[in-house]
Amino acid sequence: MASFTFYYTGIRVRDLDRSVRFYTEVLGMDLAFRMKIRRQRGEVAVLKSPRGKQKLELNWYEPGSKYATPYATGQGLDHLAFRTGSLSKAKAEFRKKGVKVVDRYMGPKGGEWFYIADPDGIWIEINGAK
Amino acid sequence: MASFTFYYTGIRVRDLDRSVRFYTEVLGMDLAFRMKIRRQRGEVAVLKSPRGKQKLELNWYEPGSKYATPYATGQGLDHLAFRTGSLSKAKAEFRKKGVKVVDRYMGPKGGEWFYIADPDGIWIEINGAK
Repeated sequence: MASFTFYYTGIRVRDLDRSVRFYTEVLGMDLAFRMKIRRQRGEVAVLKSPRGKQKLELNWYEPGSKYATPYATGQGLDHLAFRTGSLSKAKAEFRKKGVKVVDRYMGPKGGEWFYIADPDGIWIEINGAK
Repeated sequence: MASFTFYYTGIRVRDLDRSVRFYTEVLGMDLAFRMKIRRQRGEVAVLKSPRGKQKLELNWYEPGSKYATPYATGQGLDHLAFRTGSLSKAKAEFRKKGVKVVDRYMGPKGGEWFYIADPDGIWIEINGAK
């Protein structure tokens, strides 16, 4: 069997600058690179958390590109998960930045996590110690 | 600023067994674990490629769960990307397994990649040498 390696997740965004700001300023990711893709008539930005290995690609398509279909977030992407040290510190920061908690959850052993939404409505799970 | 680390991507699937089969048998991922989540009334399966670091979580919700909203794949998730050694070998395997190529693309420097769809219609990019 051929060998395959999952190596990044690409989400589609409606405003690339706005999404780069969100993932860098709210979630502290580093922008690895940003590049126009002429044939697909769009632009991508690739990000990584400073201590993480997973890559997140933001995909934007210009009006008229065959990939610029009407946008609905949909259910295919359930959530992107981020780990943090202190949930209460994260919550206080989100509050200050106007980022709302859209759902929260108490685990069976007292674990806790909650969800915020990115500018396109994609759910982000924030997981960590209280 | 609090520190955040992106650590997995969760997609929602309509049939957990079918999706576990697809990601293990077609894309060669290993199933790390599978677990019922009582409070969310669902089940998750977490997978990893043998040589990869990125985690993929499959999320399934039972009918009646508040998360079992009507399913449309949507545009939030643009694609999941997998790297392989030989694109032609991968194509031949997909053909044999009845997995269809939904789009293909030639890069400016002769690079090539193509897309297949998972059982819920999520696009998978297959990237590699010819």
